[in-house]
Amino acid sequence: MLLSISKEEMLTRQKRLHEELEKRGIEAAILFSVTDIFYLTGFHFHPTERPMGMFIDPQKKVHLFVPALEHEHAEEFASVDSVHSYPEYPGLKHPMEYLKEALIESGFQGKTVGYDSDGYGSPQGYRGPSVSSFLDAGEFISVHGVVEELRMIKSVQEIQLIKESCRWANLAHRLLHKYSKAGLNETEITSRASTEATLMMIETLGQDYKPHGSPAHAFFRGQIGEMSAIPHAVTQNARLRVGDTLVTQAHADVWGYKSELERTMFVEEYSREQEKYFKLMYEAQEIAFQAIKPGEVMSTVEKAVQQYFSENGVLDLTLHHSGHAIGLLGHEAPFFDLGDQTVIQEGMVFTIEPGLYVKGVGGFRHSDTVVVTKSGIERLTYYPRDIESLVCH
Amino acid sequence: MLLSISKEEMLTRQKRLHEELEKRGIEAAILFSVTDIFYLTGFHFHPTERPMGMFIDPQKKVHLFVPALEHEHAEEFASVDSVHSYPEYPGLKHPMEYLKEALIESGFQGKTVGYDSDGYGSPQGYRGPSVSSFLDAGEFISVHGVVEELRMIKSVQEIQLIKESCRWANLAHRLLHKYSKAGLNETEITSRASTEATLMMIETLGQDYKPHGSPAHAFFRGQIGEMSAIPHAVTQNARLRVGDTLVTQAHADVWGYKSELERTMFVEEYSREQEKYFKLMYEAQEIAFQAIKPGEVMSTVEKAVQQYFSENGVLDLTLHHSGHAIGLLGHEAPFFDLGDQTVIQEGMVFTIEPGLYVKGVGGFRHSDTVVVTKSGIERLTYYPRDIESLVCH
Repeated sequence: MLLSISKEEMLTRQKRLHEELEKRGIEAAILFSVTDIFYLTGFHFHPTERPMGMFIDPQKKVHLFVPALEHEHAEEFASVDSVHSYPEYPGLKHPMEYLKEALIESGFQGKTVGYDSDGYGSPQGYRGPSVSSFLDAGEFISVHGVVEELRMIKSVQEIQLIKESCRWANLAHRLLHKYSKAGLNETEITSRASTEATLMMIETLGQDYKPHGSPAHAFFRGQIGEMSAIPHAVTQNARLRVGDTLVTQAHADVWGYKSELERTMFVEEYSREQEKYFKLMYEAQEIAFQAIKPGEVMSTVEKAVQQYFSENGVLDLTLHHSGHAIGLLGHEAPFFDLGDQTVIQEGMVFTIEPGLYVKGVGGFRHSDTVVVTKSGIERLTYYPRDIESLVCH
Repeated sequence: MLLSISKEEMLTRQKRLHEELEKRGIEAAILFSVTDIFYLTGFHFHPTERPMGMFIDPQKKVHLFVPALEHEHAEEFASVDSVHSYPEYPGLKHPMEYLKEALIESGFQGKTVGYDSDGYGSPQGYRGPSVSSFLDAGEFISVHGVVEELRMIKSVQEIQLIKESCRWANLAHRLLHKYSKAGLNETEITSRASTEATLMMIETLGQDYKPHGSPAHAFFRGQIGEMSAIPHAVTQNARLRVGDTLVTQAHADVWGYKSELERTMFVEEYSREQEKYFKLMYEAQEIAFQAIKPGEVMSTVEKAVQQYFSENGVLDLTLHHSGHAIGLLGHEAPFFDLGDQTVIQEGMVFTIEPGLYVKGVGGFRHSDTVVVTKSGIERLTYYPRDIESLVCH
């Protein structure tokens, strides 16, 4: 069972980045994006006040730059040619002084240098100079978004990890469904479902399983009863009542890879009004599934969904676009949005989640994770979608 | 029991920001930092591809700028004069076009405008123009770090929330301690302790409790046995063995406010070597507690700790500075670091956590949260610190 990306694939990713840099006439590059660095090197890092970065020297050697407390960890886990470290932030000598020395030593002076941002950024108390203020490069060129674009098309290994994520999210969701009963507090339900699913996940996958995120969990994000009409509601410690509309969410990170499973459910019973909006949402999701084809642009899918909602007089009940790419981050570009003209390609992984939000009734949204195939999509999340399967007893 | 910051205090914070802006000759300002916006308005937001920001117009009115799906939520929870929203990102008209219109309408043109960054930034697929490219201001001045500095000294209400956080972290830690037994998997222990503490927290505090983060949880972050020598180790699904050194961590967010409690513990027994490093770490923490006085600079504390470690020949076993400020973020400036000359002031809240990391033996670190008083500190975390209390049976 695949539980991580191979070293070989990591090197292929680095090679693709080299090619992108060459195309742009860039001789050396510096990256600070934590997600992109993990994608390219396999080094997982929790950003704090202590800066980290990676750089690619003119000989195409890949270097990691980390605080001393991560040095050993980096040597062990990162697919790089060299690890540099500095004692501490802010330190008697600022970390960027160490980075400057490492860059000069690696031949960056006078070169055409790409960077994803002009220095390390963190809200956690970090202050420091921009790269362009301390490095005497020939020219600086922004490569912001270049690795993000490489990340858009998922490899066979990445899709396997996302499928593994879907399996465990499905279990967490099954337990959430089972334990959702009128009178219970949402935290009791979500804690129990998440804990049990996590334990089963760990017992099954063993020590090779590294979440690089969170193991299986399922929850409501406060979308319970009338509050389900607020799409990004936060935990409200609600107690479930008969007739409540619920909007669930289940996840499980596998080596940093994510999936998304959401269902609209009802406690014991649903009204004709709830049924009406459920069916409209259900149909809109079907329409989105059908509309996704490689070669089409993202906005086509959103247009199809909006047309259906418009014909049924509920377009004013939508509050967000119909989905987004997913992978190492929960939300990634591109988006199923009227303003997104990105071409859909085989290997892209998306959430499909058109939603309706009705004051006093609730929110209606399923979310499924799908991968684009040669001719359409394969649905990776497989929890039942029909209304009869989604009543909590 | 205080479970949130009052609206009155929110307005006081805004007034202090107005004063800081005036001092700098700034007539209007735009902020994008999610933490600072929460601090100033009470609006809690999970950043995605959809930009949000706040702005202060030349009449000192405070505005929030959010996506449509957050509009109602913002109207209900934010202490602001006005909420603006845009339909969706990227949309047929980019969100920054809406922001531009709102800024012009609010009188920003030709004014001296402060911003914390020159546009919205998010790794989650957002692309957009800088503020300086679309707004015709008289001058732009960076106010990066200004709100962060206001956040350094905690108010009476903030300290109450942090104390509440300490109470529940203490419970989670007590349960973690109780359930830590040789042969058990770390996830079993941490899930059980965290779930039970969370449920008790929610039963006790009721629906007024909004975590704006995570309720009580306690865990090891992979710092178990020999792996405890890696200070930021990640989950490794380890099974506890007799004689393991453990480094724990317990938290509980209360309306976004954090505390930190960490303990070095031993499974059933400890060797003379483990005892030796424990005692050195324990003494170093005592020295740090004593060294913190308002009026001293941050580096004094680190110097005192390093001198003690140096005298005992273990300075080479340290991997990080001795602590940091804490509040709405887990790590905030200033730092107990040789390079930090910030003056310690009454009302600052810090973690105190000098650590020793010994290959093949383990990591040795307690972390306590303290508030600076008129003459020294008050310790807010109160879990026992002595070795006899920290053996797991």
